[in-house]
Amino acid sequence: MKKKEIILTGDRPTGPLHLGHFVGSLRSRVELQEKCVQYIMIADAQAMTDHAKEPFKVRENILQLAIDYLSVGIDPEETTIFIQSYVPALFELTLYYLNLVTWNRLKHNPTVKQEITQKGFKESVPAGFFIYPISQAADITAFKADLVPVGEDQKPMIEQTNEIVRTFNRTYKKNILVEAKALIPKMGRLPGIDGHFKMGKSLNNAIFLSDSVDVIRKKVKKMYTDSNHLRIEDPGKVEGNPVFSYLDAFGEEKEKIADLKAHYQRGGLGDAMLKNYLLEVLLTFLKPIQKKRFEIEKERGYVIELLKKGTKAANEIAQKTLFEVREAMHLDYFTNFIL
Amino acid sequence: MKKKEIILTGDRPTGPLHLGHFVGSLRSRVELQEKCVQYIMIADAQAMTDHAKEPFKVRENILQLAIDYLSVGIDPEETTIFIQSYVPALFELTLYYLNLVTWNRLKHNPTVKQEITQKGFKESVPAGFFIYPISQAADITAFKADLVPVGEDQKPMIEQTNEIVRTFNRTYKKNILVEAKALIPKMGRLPGIDGHFKMGKSLNNAIFLSDSVDVIRKKVKKMYTDSNHLRIEDPGKVEGNPVFSYLDAFGEEKEKIADLKAHYQRGGLGDAMLKNYLLEVLLTFLKPIQKKRFEIEKERGYVIELLKKGTKAANEIAQKTLFEVREAMHLDYFTNFIL
Repeated sequence: MKKKEIILTGDRPTGPLHLGHFVGSLRSRVELQEKCVQYIMIADAQAMTDHAKEPFKVRENILQLAIDYLSVGIDPEETTIFIQSYVPALFELTLYYLNLVTWNRLKHNPTVKQEITQKGFKESVPAGFFIYPISQAADITAFKADLVPVGEDQKPMIEQTNEIVRTFNRTYKKNILVEAKALIPKMGRLPGIDGHFKMGKSLNNAIFLSDSVDVIRKKVKKMYTDSNHLRIEDPGKVEGNPVFSYLDAFGEEKEKIADLKAHYQRGGLGDAMLKNYLLEVLLTFLKPIQKKRFEIEKERGYVIELLKKGTKAANEIAQKTLFEVREAMHLDYFTNFIL
Repeated sequence: MKKKEIILTGDRPTGPLHLGHFVGSLRSRVELQEKCVQYIMIADAQAMTDHAKEPFKVRENILQLAIDYLSVGIDPEETTIFIQSYVPALFELTLYYLNLVTWNRLKHNPTVKQEITQKGFKESVPAGFFIYPISQAADITAFKADLVPVGEDQKPMIEQTNEIVRTFNRTYKKNILVEAKALIPKMGRLPGIDGHFKMGKSLNNAIFLSDSVDVIRKKVKKMYTDSNHLRIEDPGKVEGNPVFSYLDAFGEEKEKIADLKAHYQRGGLGDAMLKNYLLEVLLTFLKPIQKKRFEIEKERGYVIELLKKGTKAANEIAQKTLFEVREAMHLDYFTNFIL
């Protein structure tokens, strides 16, 4: 039997998950957990690289993130969910890998450069943030992940990891670390309710999986559609209209949606009616997720135990890799003290 | 009773210790171990920041370094000797502290800038080397060291550590980390046998504590004295003459040395005779050290056990600090999971 592929994925616990996460990653995690060995990392240490001064923002979101995972159907029997900062081997690997990467290379990581601009860090970028691609390399290699689901813009991160893998294996003449492949989601990003190409918690344009019916209704009501669609009888655009993107992503009635698109394009279909339908679709989609969330919310002790168990399992794997890494580097004096 | 002050000190295991180490640090460690709580760290992880491709150079020197310490009188009952890379809390602290330091600040560390030039790294400086001041801050703060013996040129390292201490305590509103003071040795540096102001293993101008009598004789014979002292009857210089620096550092017969200086300055004292006396002084000084080394060399198992014991003790202290640090940062979910 072919060895199951290993997947490492995860999220920074800096806010609740939203519909964009569902489309971009959660859905495929639920599918992949049966085919692969899947690890989901709650990346609190990584979140601290740009939230060092707001640790509560990180802390408060950890349990909610775990509950989000369970609500959408991540099965803790199939997937190992763990908390990054409780896996000390990851810190140690990060520091060893930093010795194999030049400062210059680090400065030219395109993803990090772009994020520094986006976050408006300028000269005050924390050193920890600057080196986070190396910390990611530690995460990925510790679990010997074959596949890492990332967006197109994150591909340089996987390249950086694989560079380290090759440098390590070549330098220490052991084939221990494994190169990973980027797993780019088939379906593109879900736009924000404001029509921005990306839904994001910091963009303030997201519908969260845990939003109440009332909040969802308000968000749908104020959704961007087509700024030229002023009167009901006007023809409207489907392309770039987030309402239709959401219908495509979450609607079950494909024929009805095709009809609505045609109707909208030739004119005569009002935004209010369209949005009412979207609201119905979203509530239908979210109902089982929110029902499950409601059940799990009552069992926080169970979720904490589950995180402890997952973190323990993750530690076993990461420690094993660290042991092999130290052995390859000849930093294994206490187990192999021939000096 | 006043709390004993805590000292953290150590060496990179990249070569055996020499007379310069004795004058600059070993001697004061032997004195301080009775007055203070002293930790000596074998900084293998730090050595890897610029020796990642020669791990054997690091590995091979660890046990020799420990034997050097014991030979000069470091008492394992008084001083905790430990191996850095076996204290995982140090890696974790390093990564948390990196979030509190800007990239820009890191770039402008004068000691690191100077070392990068000296080592000829240019654009290829390893990222791990670049951030080693933060790893030092982790070492120092993990043990809550009050005093860190450093050369004048290393003072910016202590400043960097104290900046992190202040930022941490202010950011997380807890007075956990302790500022350290630089302990600058009274006696300046011992020159190399070539007259270079500094004795250094990489400068190839050192007399090692473990050198054989024959090697010491050869090194003393070729020592630089005064390049204008060509004939015995010529007056010679004492200032800048390493032979006299060594006599001052290791000779017991202060009057005789004063007479020799006067004689040398007025002329009539040949280099050969002077060096014969220095050889006698050095061998007298090194005899008990080498005798002890010979005894310890036979008991390597004992030294390894001692390193294990010291490392275990160091781990207890560092883990305790890490626990407090995580608590202050609110990264203590598993011990305090109120979410």
